[in-house]
Order: sequence, then structure tokens, then C-alpha cells
Amino acid sequence: MKLLSMKEMNMKDKFFSEYMQLIRNHVIPYQWEALNDRIEGAEPSYCMQNFKVASGKIQGKFMGMVFQDSDAYKWLEAVGYCLMWNPDKELEEIADGAIDDICAAQQPDGYLNTYYIIGGLDKRFTNLKDHHELYCLGHMIEAAVVYYQATGKRKFMDTAIRYVDCVNSIFGAEAGKLHGYPGHEVIEMALVRLYEVTKDEKHLRLAKYFIDERGKQPLYFESETIINQNNFHWKDSYFKFQYYQAGREVRQQEKAEGHAVRAVYLYSGMAAVANETGDESLIRACERLWDNITNKQMYITGAIGASRYGESFTFDYDLPNDTIYAETCAAVGLIFFARRMFELTKDSKYMNVLERVLFNGAISGMSLDGTKFFYVNPLEVVPEASEKDEQKRHVKVERQKWFGCACCPPNIARLLSSIGSYAYTETDECFFMNLYIGGDITTTIHGQNVELHVETNYPWDGAVKISFNQKEEAEFCYAIRIPDWCRKYVIALNGEEIQTDLVKGYVYLHRKWKNGDTITCDFNMEIILNQANPKVREDIGKAAISRGPLIYCLEEADNGNNLHRIYIKKDTKFTEQFEKDLLKGIVTLTCDGEKLVDSNWNEEVLYQIYQDPIFEKKTLKWIPYYSWANRNPGEMLVWVRTKV
Amino acid sequence: MKLLSMKEMNMKDKFFSEYMQLIRNHVIPYQWEALNDRIEGAEPSYCMQNFKVASGKIQGKFMGMVFQDSDAYKWLEAVGYCLMWNPDKELEEIADGAIDDICAAQQPDGYLNTYYIIGGLDKRFTNLKDHHELYCLGHMIEAAVVYYQATGKRKFMDTAIRYVDCVNSIFGAEAGKLHGYPGHEVIEMALVRLYEVTKDEKHLRLAKYFIDERGKQPLYFESETIINQNNFHWKDSYFKFQYYQAGREVRQQEKAEGHAVRAVYLYSGMAAVANETGDESLIRACERLWDNITNKQMYITGAIGASRYGESFTFDYDLPNDTIYAETCAAVGLIFFARRMFELTKDSKYMNVLERVLFNGAISGMSLDGTKFFYVNPLEVVPEASEKDEQKRHVKVERQKWFGCACCPPNIARLLSSIGSYAYTETDECFFMNLYIGGDITTTIHGQNVELHVETNYPWDGAVKISFNQKEEAEFCYAIRIPDWCRKYVIALNGEEIQTDLVKGYVYLHRKWKNGDTITCDFNMEIILNQANPKVREDIGKAAISRGPLIYCLEEADNGNNLHRIYIKKDTKFTEQFEKDLLKGIVTLTCDGEKLVDSNWNEEVLYQIYQDPIFEKKTLKWIPYYSWANRNPGEMLVWVRTKV
Repeated sequence: MKLLSMKEMNMKDKFFSEYMQLIRNHVIPYQWEALNDRIEGAEPSYCMQNFKVASGKIQGKFMGMVFQDSDAYKWLEAVGYCLMWNPDKELEEIADGAIDDICAAQQPDGYLNTYYIIGGLDKRFTNLKDHHELYCLGHMIEAAVVYYQATGKRKFMDTAIRYVDCVNSIFGAEAGKLHGYPGHEVIEMALVRLYEVTKDEKHLRLAKYFIDERGKQPLYFESETIINQNNFHWKDSYFKFQYYQAGREVRQQEKAEGHAVRAVYLYSGMAAVANETGDESLIRACERLWDNITNKQMYITGAIGASRYGESFTFDYDLPNDTIYAETCAAVGLIFFARRMFELTKDSKYMNVLERVLFNGAISGMSLDGTKFFYVNPLEVVPEASEKDEQKRHVKVERQKWFGCACCPPNIARLLSSIGSYAYTETDECFFMNLYIGGDITTTIHGQNVELHVETNYPWDGAVKISFNQKEEAEFCYAIRIPDWCRKYVIALNGEEIQTDLVKGYVYLHRKWKNGDTITCDFNMEIILNQANPKVREDIGKAAISRGPLIYCLEEADNGNNLHRIYIKKDTKFTEQFEKDLLKGIVTLTCDGEKLVDSNWNEEVLYQIYQDPIFEKKTLKWIPYYSWANRNPGEMLVWVRTKV
Repeated sequence: MKLLSMKEMNMKDKFFSEYMQLIRNHVIPYQWEALNDRIEGAEPSYCMQNFKVASGKIQGKFMGMVFQDSDAYKWLEAVGYCLMWNPDKELEEIADGAIDDICAAQQPDGYLNTYYIIGGLDKRFTNLKDHHELYCLGHMIEAAVVYYQATGKRKFMDTAIRYVDCVNSIFGAEAGKLHGYPGHEVIEMALVRLYEVTKDEKHLRLAKYFIDERGKQPLYFESETIINQNNFHWKDSYFKFQYYQAGREVRQQEKAEGHAVRAVYLYSGMAAVANETGDESLIRACERLWDNITNKQMYITGAIGASRYGESFTFDYDLPNDTIYAETCAAVGLIFFARRMFELTKDSKYMNVLERVLFNGAISGMSLDGTKFFYVNPLEVVPEASEKDEQKRHVKVERQKWFGCACCPPNIARLLSSIGSYAYTETDECFFMNLYIGGDITTTIHGQNVELHVETNYPWDGAVKISFNQKEEAEFCYAIRIPDWCRKYVIALNGEEIQTDLVKGYVYLHRKWKNGDTITCDFNMEIILNQANPKVREDIGKAAISRGPLIYCLEEADNGNNLHRIYIKKDTKFTEQFEKDLLKGIVTLTCDGEKLVDSNWNEEVLYQIYQDPIFEKKTLKWIPYYSWANRNPGEMLVWVRTKV
């Protein structure tokens, strides 16, 4: 299965095109300034400076975090995607210059990590657990592959390959090699991407090695800690080496544990390798971990990672809404994992989650003007608690400007600048429409030219129209995902309704497609009251509202404060309205609710004999979750109390 | 006003006498072994060893925490109280020996702190903020006063007074003296206790100085940090110097902030000083801080301190039940504060809170067999969360054995071994019955001998009988507190019901009391459904059950797990039963409830379209909160959902 390249698409999507433009016009230029320490008032990044020091172009010390190199790579990956759908000579020249600076630092044996080049190569690969060395290489590979795909230029990719060769000569299961693996995963999936381009088995084997070796006894990280006489930071934690998903072999892992971003990056790599090798035990492990996350550890927004401590998963059904971590990067990582699982299975259940994450817990990470970012994406916020309670201080009320060490902003950037590739994938026989994103698509399926036009106002409207502009007929299967949130839908071919069974959640339309053929989909977007499994303690007696793929929330700006005191009834009637001037244009929902008042309470009394609570009627206004915190800071709430 | 001495009482209380015996027969001997490093498998305390090293009796280094000395003092204070009501030659000899070891370490100028005597006297009083030097002296004074009162022996008190003289010569508002004050308060109230015995104005003045100086600009702790080039641990916290209640002058403090134990120790000292000086602005500050705590920051169990971070208060109405700190020591400290406020005002509102704390959040700190202790007293526990979620790891499911650094166990010990003194206080004209504790009391009021016998089965029964055994008549006022939880009561004098207005919550019976007079009180103990102010987010839609002074809870041992899914109705009927063999004899409550079931849920589904929840009927059994966690570890819950 192949993701459509962004080169094959001319995105004309009302919803995503604006995000893509933001990434291209604001995020990427801003980050370039940041990487070069030219943002006034911001902590310097030192990222590009480190490369210049490492190559001897300038004198200096290594500065910044040990994984500072990766910021340049993430930026280059986003640039690569942008260049695919929007060739831009000026940007490409800047990127080429950055690549020159990076490549100049490469050592004769291929090694390329500025922290150790500057600080002492004798220490390289001695702290895999914490020093993100292989993590940086992973991001380098991902960027290099995308940049090659975008521009056809091999310099960066060849540099990455030389570094991979270097790593290959040092790491492996063979005697005499280091039996190590990364503390922060990403290289596994990166190597599969490299293999997809190079078809060099070495690259796949190295990815497979890192996965197979992980967690084997004796534990590499344990030995490394002893040799280095390092403190093991997580020794008193519950997860211990599972913080790194390295407490046991990956095929023995039953539940998603530890650092959430690392976890989903690893699982993505596992699924990517399994996809190439067909390794059944690895596929089972991926399915088990997927099911554990999505059936037991995922917020309704698709967010993952319940605890700030270790930015980690906690345990099944533990989903606090207010002390939550829910890192933007983890949401993006879950999208990577979903994509790979879909490739393995062609099952819409993965794309259903991908859509849920994308439209809620992922894009919530960026402000609507592209200038500010959330690391933490809560489902419940009270500003005073975020200010005064240390357990909630990480839960910010406002997105932060992107300074210094920054993982989430570039992750959002690379996701959104390549979003079309998640929407459309193809096999030799079949074209999959996974997400409904408007634009023109020009591709080839089984040697046949295909030209499509997709028109939609998704996610505000469930109507999607696909028109074929075929010079010649093309025979293939057009597969349409029926979203899990949709209970009523109509698929019509040239105006005629199609009745067909779903196969793993997709409608398959096989045909010789000819010019003028149209498919219309109408996904009925009803407003749904959702409830959580009663095992989720935090959500008992509450409901969350959704419409189509969007989860909704209440914000103080529309509903006043004390949102916790709001109740809705099961049979509440909603009205919906597209407000084009609100939050860049959103469908808002309005309904009747009730609010617990304290007019019968003396402010000076904390406890009294139980009396029937007094409620007042209140009109509630809901906005899509992703759009919260784009006005004055205030309370926000997703799960609202229900009157039984 | 004077607290009755434990010497004046022969406690025969069914509820408290057993606790007192536990303290005397188990806790005190066990702690003595701990102080002398003779507990197998326990981390050594080094406490008594440090004194011997400091006096040169043995060679060695200082070991243990910087405030290790205070453990010996807390132990001696508890011993002192026990010797009052139970003279015990053997225990007194051991205590005399300990006092000899302590006093032998005193320096020529009176100084006595083993950490600096052993480690370097040149550094003494250079880190008041964090090194607990004056805190240790505070506990020394408290122990020395009690030991003197118990035994009449002055050696320990004279030693303490010499150390106070030394401190007096170094600290003060005068030019040339250090303008410092303790990082951890306690010396303020201790000095007032000393003054109560010595009537030496110096001692009161020093207490007043520490209170008046606290928080003055320029901030002493800030200067000290700069001089020492120390890291200021709380610099990134919300409370900063208010962690120590030192961010502004005490009279400017509006809300209880920072470390909860330190806070209530300080406030107790403030009230104690105000009591002696009549300082109006200080009294107002005490009242303000008291009101803030009890009206806005106190759990229904009387526990205080919402956050583990800094073991601190957070903000008004922020009372999470599951991530709570609620340290036992803070509960004990609130009792100290209540006692001093009552002395200032003779208002029952302080004793109402004292009773609430005592019977719930304080004694919950000790197991029913006196061998294990809670530092943290939660209102809601799920064992899996305590194990796997770092934010709840401090919330233990089982009380811990008392090892190493230990503040809460000796605090409970000194409280319970002197509990009679809180129950009964007197002025020249009036005898106050604040708590209902059985026993014989022999005292003098305004020169007249008074002999009383109090009989009650409190807290299981609201009947209290007071009999006078007067050889001669005595004219005074007998004041009886009417508990705030009681809506119906009868007070009868010699069988005749008394109708009288309450004065600040007390019934005052003025009379020439003669032999054979009896007062009977009948406080109707109905079972009450309590509700919290809707400003307390965590308790919205919930109720807590109480009977008399006792808050009740559900435990897994009686009700199975998933307690969060239990609902009760407002008009639930309860039955009560004294179960003499359960948890050392308790009144249990039984009622009908309902439990949200998940039979309509696929375990593998996290979210679904809202359906009417399904409930099953369930008989609920409630036990007093203080008695939880004395059986198999499991869930516990105080605030239970209500069906509106």
C-alpha cells in the first residue's frame, strides 16, 4: 500500500488548506528564525549554530539540549512536504543551505551528531537510554527521505544513509556489536521509510533489529546505567524500564506503558516493520497494543497520555480530564501508528481513530493563527487551578509561543503539511478515500492514469462529491470509508444510490471509471451525546457532545464560568449554525441546559445538610474542541454532567 | 483560660482510653526502640546516637535528617503526658536517661542542636529557612514544659531555658541582632507554653518577635539565600516564600497558604501570643486565617492541605479527594490552632472544628492496633491508582510502619495522650466541657474543690451524664458545648430539662453545685446526608454521610469495588447497628443504594452514544471514616454520588 504523495494532490480543502498555508507561510519561516537564534526575546535554540561548530565553520561549544539536532530535521521534513505541494525556490535554497551545514558536520565514518562531535566522539553511543542519539538519526532519516521525494536531491539522503551504515556497523545482534537500541524511539519507522525508497534490505534489517532486541535480557539499559554509574531516573517509578517500553521484549508487551510519544513511535515502527516482513507475532503485538490504547487508554478527543509524570500512560480506564497530559506529539504519533495499522489491515477502525485524533486532540495543539502551541491538551480547565495547583500547572490556559526546545510544533507542522497523504492511499487495485479532503488528485493505479476532483465542506457538512476527469477509462476499486460516528449515509454513483455491504468499514466500488463519473457521499452529521464506559471514573454521570468527527466543548467565553455546575439532559435538542466570523468559521451548537446555583448557600459555609440542589435554566453554546483557547483565557469543559 | 491537666483526670472513656493505652503500651516503647536504632529491618534513626556524639560520649558523625533531634523531643512530650495520667517509674527512668543524654550535649552558651554541634558550630543559625534549627528548639521547649509539669523535674526545662536565652541573645528586632525567624514554625507556640509556666516576659517577647518579624521586608530568607548562594527550592512555585508563610507580614496574610503543617503551627503561635497580649490586629489575622481554612480549604473530615506539592494548601474551594495530601500532622496542628482560638473567644465554632478533626482526619492517621500510620488521609482511594499513577502514589492504601523520619506518629501520640486537656478547660468562673470524654475529674475552680464524674458512650451515643461528688458546694458555671452537628438535644439538671439560650454555642449552667447534682445531655445522633458548597468542584452531585461527630465512608471490604459507581438517594433510610466485634467496636450504617452497572457495555468500547444508565440495587454498608484501612486493602470513598 502506498500513501499518495502530496505531489499528486492539489489541495483545495476549505478546512485544511488554510492550516497548510499557515504552516508554510508562518510556522516554517518562524521556526527557521528560531533555529538560527534570531527571535527576539526567545531563548536561543543553537541548533544551526551547533552544526556549524561541529563542522569547524565556526568556533564554539555545543549548546542547547542533547537532542537539539532533531529540530533542524523536523523543520526540514515539514519543508519537504511543503515543497511537494508548493514548489518554492527561495525556501528550497534556504533548506539546501541548511542541508549543506548539516552534511558538512558528517565524520569520515558517517557519524553525525553535533553533541558528541563537539563534546567528544569517544563518548558516542554510550548513553543510548537518555541521550537521544538514535532519535536524532531517526528524524534525520525521515527528513532526508521526504526532502529527496520532494526535490529529487540526494545529498541529504546520502548523508543519512552513510550515517545509517555507520550505525549498522556498530549495532546488531551479531557478536562483537553493541546490542543497544534507542531510549527514544523513532528510528524504527524512519528506517522503514528509508527502505521504502532504497529497497536496501540492510535498512529494513536494522529497523527489525532495534525492535527485536528491545527489552531482551540482560537489559541493555540496565548494563549501560551500571557502566556509566548513572542514576536511573525512573527507578522509583511504577513503570521503570517500561518508561522506554524496554522492560520486556516488544512481543511480550500487553499494554501501552511509559512515555506516550515514545510508545506510539515504537508501535508505529513495529507496525511498519510487520507490514514489510509479515511477522505474525509482531502483528499480534501491534494489534494488542492498539486495542489497549484505543479501547482503554484514549480520551474521546483521541488524546493519549494520562499523566504528566513521565508524560506517560497510567493504567486502563484512568482518564482524568484535568490533570491529563495528552501531549500533541503523542496524538501525532497515534496518527502514525493508525496509518501503519491501516496499511496492515485495510480496516477502517484505524482510520476512524486517525480521524478522531486529527480533528480533535492533534489540531488543538496549534492556535488558529499558527503562532502558538499546546503541548498539553486538556479536556477540562480552570485557570485558577492551572495557576495555583502544581498538579495542574502543566495544563496551560493559553497556547505558548514556540521557543527553545520544541517537539510539538514541528510535529504538527509535518503532519498538516502532509495531511493529504493520510486521506488518500492506494494499492495496485484500489484507491482508498480515508478522509474527506477536497482537491484535485492525479495519480496512476495499476499503470492507469487517474484524475479525480473531490469537493466537500467537511467537517462542517457530510456531503462529499468525487468527480472523475478521465481521458481514458481506468478500472479499479474506489473504496470509501464510512465513518464510525455516522449512523445514516447515502453513497450514490452517478446519481444512483448504491446498496452494498461494508468490508471492514469501507464501501468498495469496483468499476471501469470514465470521464464524468461522479460519486456522492452524504454522511448524516447528527449531534451525538456520547458517554464513556463506566470504568472511566472521571466521566461517570457525564456526557460529551460531538457532531461528525468533531468533539465539542463549552468555553467560558460563551457560557460564563463554573462550567462544572452545568447539566444537560439526555434528550436535549440542539440547534446548529455555521458562524463564519467566529474562530475562522465554525459550526456552533446551542442547547438548553441547567446550572447548579449557589444562591441557597452562604459563601462562608463549606458543608451543610443535603438539600435539593437548585438549578437555573441556561442556554449553552458549544464550539469544536480544537478551536478552544483562541479567545480570552478561561474555563473549558468537554465532559458535562447529565441529569439522569 | 487553662486546660485541665491530665493529672486532674482519671480517664475512663470507652473510646479514648484504649487509644491512650495503645500510645502508652505500644507506640511509646516502639518509638524508644526506633530512636535507639534497635528496630530490625528499619532504617536507623540515629537520633539518640547524635546526642551522644554531640556530648562526646561516643565518637561519630551526625546522621539522619537535619531535624533529627526533634524526634526525641516529640517522644518525651508524649511520655510526659502519659506520666501525668499513669505514673510509671520505669518509663520515667528511661526518659530521665534520655534527658541526661540530651542535656549533656548543651554548649556553654546554652546552644543545643546536634547537627551543628557535630558538624560545625560556626555554621549555626545560617540556614534558618531550611535547617529546622529553631523548629527543634520549639519541640524541645514543648517537651521540657510537659515533662516538668508531669514530674516536677526541672533539669530538662532549665536546659531548654538556657537554650532560649542563647537564642534570645542572638535574635531580635534590635540593631546588631539577627532579624531571623524559623523556616518551620512551632517555637512561637512553644515559647508561649514556656511563658505560661515561667511567667518570664522574655519568653513571650521572643515568641512575639518571631511572629512580628516574619515576612518583613527586606525578606530575611531572601537575604539568607543570597548569602549562602543556596538554591531557593520554591522559586518556580506559585507560593514562593508563602511556602513558609513568610512572603508577607503575618497580619497581612489573608489566606492559608503554603506548607499546611507550618501554617497551622504558625497560626497557633499567633493565637497563643494574641491570647497573652490582646493584640487586636493579630487576633483579626488569626480569625481571618481560621475562617479561610475552615470555610474554604478544609475537607469534611477536618483534614487540610490539598496538594502533595509542598504538602500545601492550594486555593479556596480546591478540595480534590483523591490527589489530596491531608497530612495527619496538619490535622493535629489545626487542633492546636482551634484550641488557641477557643481560648481567645470561648466560641464553640472552634471546638466544633476541633471535634471534627479529632474524630475523623486526625485519628484516621493511626491504625486501630497502634502499629501503623498514615501521613496522607485521603477521602477517596483506588488501589490501582495509588500504585500506577504517580500523582496518587503518596495516597497509600495501607498505613505504614513507623520508621526513620517520622513526624505524624509522635504528633498523634502527643495529641491522644493529652486529649483530656482539650475536652475540659476552665476559667476562674467557668468549667467548659468541650468534648464528651468519660472519666473522673478533680480540680479547683476559683479556689473551690470540684469533683466530677462524666459517663458517656460517645461517639456512638449522644447521652452524656455528669455527676458531682462535692464534699463542699462549689459555685461556678458549667458550660456545655452543643455540637454543630446536633439539631435536637436535651440538657437536664437533676432530671429537669433546662431551656436556655446558647452563648456562642454553649449552654451555661450557673449554680452552687452540690453533691449528687447531675447533668444529663442527650445529643440526638441522627444520620445526616451532607453536601458541599457547589464551589467545591470535586463534590458536586455528591453527598457524605455523618452520624454525630463521625464522617462515614464506604470500603471495598463491605461493598465490593467500583465504589465510584454507587449512588444514593436523598431520602435514603439508614439503619444503624453497634457491631462490637468489627473494627474494635463501631456503629455501622446500612442503607439501600444503587450501582451503575456496565452489563450493557462491551468491555472493548470506551465511548458510545448516550444511553440511559442501568442501575442495580445494592445494600450499602458504611463505617466510620477513621476506621478505614484496618482490613484488607481496597477502595474507599467518602463522597458518594446522589441521584437528583
